[in-house]
Amino acid sequence: MKAEIISIGDEILIGQIVNTNAAWMSTELNNAGFEVVRISTIPDKKDDIILAINNAAKKADVILLTGGLGPTNDDITKKTLCEYFNTELAFNESAFQQIKTLFGARGFEVTELNRKQAELPKSCTSIANFNGTARGMWFNKKGKIIVSMPGVPFEMKPMMTDFVIPKLKKHFDTPAILHKTILTQGKGESFLAEIIKDWENELPKNIKLAYLPQPGIVRLRLSAKGEDGEILSKQVETEIDKLKNIIPEYIFGYDDDKLEKIVGELLKERKKTLSTAESCTGGYISHLITSISGSSEYYLGSVISYANEIKENILGVSKQSIIEHGVVSRQVVTEMAKGVQEKLNTDYSIAVSGIAGPTGGSVEKPVGTTWIAIATPEKVVAKKFLFGEHRERNIRKTALMALDMLRKEILLDEG
Amino acid sequence: MKAEIISIGDEILIGQIVNTNAAWMSTELNNAGFEVVRISTIPDKKDDIILAINNAAKKADVILLTGGLGPTNDDITKKTLCEYFNTELAFNESAFQQIKTLFGARGFEVTELNRKQAELPKSCTSIANFNGTARGMWFNKKGKIIVSMPGVPFEMKPMMTDFVIPKLKKHFDTPAILHKTILTQGKGESFLAEIIKDWENELPKNIKLAYLPQPGIVRLRLSAKGEDGEILSKQVETEIDKLKNIIPEYIFGYDDDKLEKIVGELLKERKKTLSTAESCTGGYISHLITSISGSSEYYLGSVISYANEIKENILGVSKQSIIEHGVVSRQVVTEMAKGVQEKLNTDYSIAVSGIAGPTGGSVEKPVGTTWIAIATPEKVVAKKFLFGEHRERNIRKTALMALDMLRKEILLDEG
Repeated sequence: MKAEIISIGDEILIGQIVNTNAAWMSTELNNAGFEVVRISTIPDKKDDIILAINNAAKKADVILLTGGLGPTNDDITKKTLCEYFNTELAFNESAFQQIKTLFGARGFEVTELNRKQAELPKSCTSIANFNGTARGMWFNKKGKIIVSMPGVPFEMKPMMTDFVIPKLKKHFDTPAILHKTILTQGKGESFLAEIIKDWENELPKNIKLAYLPQPGIVRLRLSAKGEDGEILSKQVETEIDKLKNIIPEYIFGYDDDKLEKIVGELLKERKKTLSTAESCTGGYISHLITSISGSSEYYLGSVISYANEIKENILGVSKQSIIEHGVVSRQVVTEMAKGVQEKLNTDYSIAVSGIAGPTGGSVEKPVGTTWIAIATPEKVVAKKFLFGEHRERNIRKTALMALDMLRKEILLDEG
Repeated sequence: MKAEIISIGDEILIGQIVNTNAAWMSTELNNAGFEVVRISTIPDKKDDIILAINNAAKKADVILLTGGLGPTNDDITKKTLCEYFNTELAFNESAFQQIKTLFGARGFEVTELNRKQAELPKSCTSIANFNGTARGMWFNKKGKIIVSMPGVPFEMKPMMTDFVIPKLKKHFDTPAILHKTILTQGKGESFLAEIIKDWENELPKNIKLAYLPQPGIVRLRLSAKGEDGEILSKQVETEIDKLKNIIPEYIFGYDDDKLEKIVGELLKERKKTLSTAESCTGGYISHLITSISGSSEYYLGSVISYANEIKENILGVSKQSIIEHGVVSRQVVTEMAKGVQEKLNTDYSIAVSGIAGPTGGSVEKPVGTTWIAIATPEKVVAKKFLFGEHRERNIRKTALMALDMLRKEILLDEG
């Protein structure tokens, strides 16, 4: 079964909003056995919306639209759909009650604009929105399904998960498609490709491999197609087992795994605690760790020592070390790791010190030079990296490398 | 002049990559006077690529393609373009030298796969890539321009800025389009719409308004079209001046302004320093502040006190206050703000303490309850907020609200 996603919104076309919805919806559709054949972004204009639906209908069995359902005048999707499906708007009392309930809970008053959002096309099945005022709409046109949802991710996602995907699965008889992504850290795309080329060449014909590089991470995606989900699953497992033997040290997880989550689980299982001392990453490692719900079980906190005095006064780094070796050095990052581990009284700690850039580099220590230290209950290990010239990427690469170093140290401590 | 963007890549269609390129390219095109009429994402398949170019050519004068130029087997754009333009690949010595230079600087060896990337279609003008191995390609087909670039943002962006946009401006005679976005913090979309509806209704016909809500921020985008850029600019300025009189307290900036940058500039101008003490936001405020290059001039650091002992031991929050009022309270957040301000010896400080969720809420203090305090050289102000149930959004909303509170306090200190 083929699906197409149409994102409606001038704000995407002029570049003020990144289309994260389409990516999320694609994943959901793929997992449900639908192949996404195209994603289109079009303006909030009647003719473009109708053209896009007609074009999509040539290829796709399912067409999902998002956007243009807001309370303001620039949103015209609902009117356009009425025209397309030759139907008209009618006030929906239960939709209105839901808006009132939602606003009541937040202590807001219902405006006239919001009242209009309770008007819906007569020929659609309406989809409840528990997080906002715009309902979703499900249309069936001679077996093809067309669904319109709000563009706000927070409102659209529950509609997809709770209503659209289950109903689509019932409506269509879908073939088995399986995606499995292997997450690696530590080597770039072309180097990995060289190491694993024999494995790649010997993959079964129904399994495709794609390389998905990101700063600090290369993801290897296997896509398998077939009749039977269970057979596919075993086939993919076999290939992954082979790969594990070739690059065991680079694989840290699968699919949506996150290093910060994996590290968190390792700590939780072992009842160990963690602290961080960040300089160049400025809180980003701490942010990643605490983005995981429940991280307070193992993560006690951080000292962001952007200024040298804080390295000295709070982390206890010696002035002498800073003068002799510079703040970006094995000596200082090791003292930072020990300092925060002691001060916050944790089993493990991460410390980083580097030159994020774009300024601050020198000949011996160019922008991107970064020291990372991991303190364990027994020792401190420190390593130097050269991450390049771009601030944002350096911060991200440093954080991921630090988390992966910690992961490996925790696993070593078992042996 | 009309432009269309075609993103090539199975990884986008299956949802593993968010198409941030298209958003960025749209902004650049719009600013150069090109109207983006459609963004399409299609698979790494020859027929789909050719169909998409043909479709785009019906509407657009400029077609920009990204993706499918990597060194691995799943990348087929270059071969397909050769077929489309009826040309063939030829080894390009200078492209190969550039790859060698790039790899030499990073201490890497050139692989056979990378050597293939120096093969380019004979009929194109090649575009240098200083950040990677895949060159860009510029084709002119009877006046229509078709450009193919790598999908890695870090490689594509300099090609656009340094080569494609300047060359497009030379090639076409573009009309004036002006976008100006007003950034507001503190009120939701429907409430703003009510307050400013008269202003909206009286906008000149050639100016369109769009609401772009994000967690914690509502952006108001004005799009003006006309003959003369200067006249448009004055027209838009006049409308913004009117709006400033209606909602002065909610406007914090324009276009790509970031609160963290604005706050940083205010501090820098006044030669003042800042520290933060974060609980529920876990380093996110610090990360935002330090994402700005040069922030070390005014930002000294942070104490991320995820655990209560750190609030007590490092920030000097009294045990008594925690027992009597709870960690999420005016009392504790005020002590945190004072504590970090003193300890790190800064002029200003931000402190936050809240229940980010999804667990940890109670009847009196539901998930989303957040206290924010700002310490100034003279006083501490603290306010309570109720941000809702979603962890990631709470963290973001808290951070933006805290930065905006600080911004207002700094400005008040002038008066």
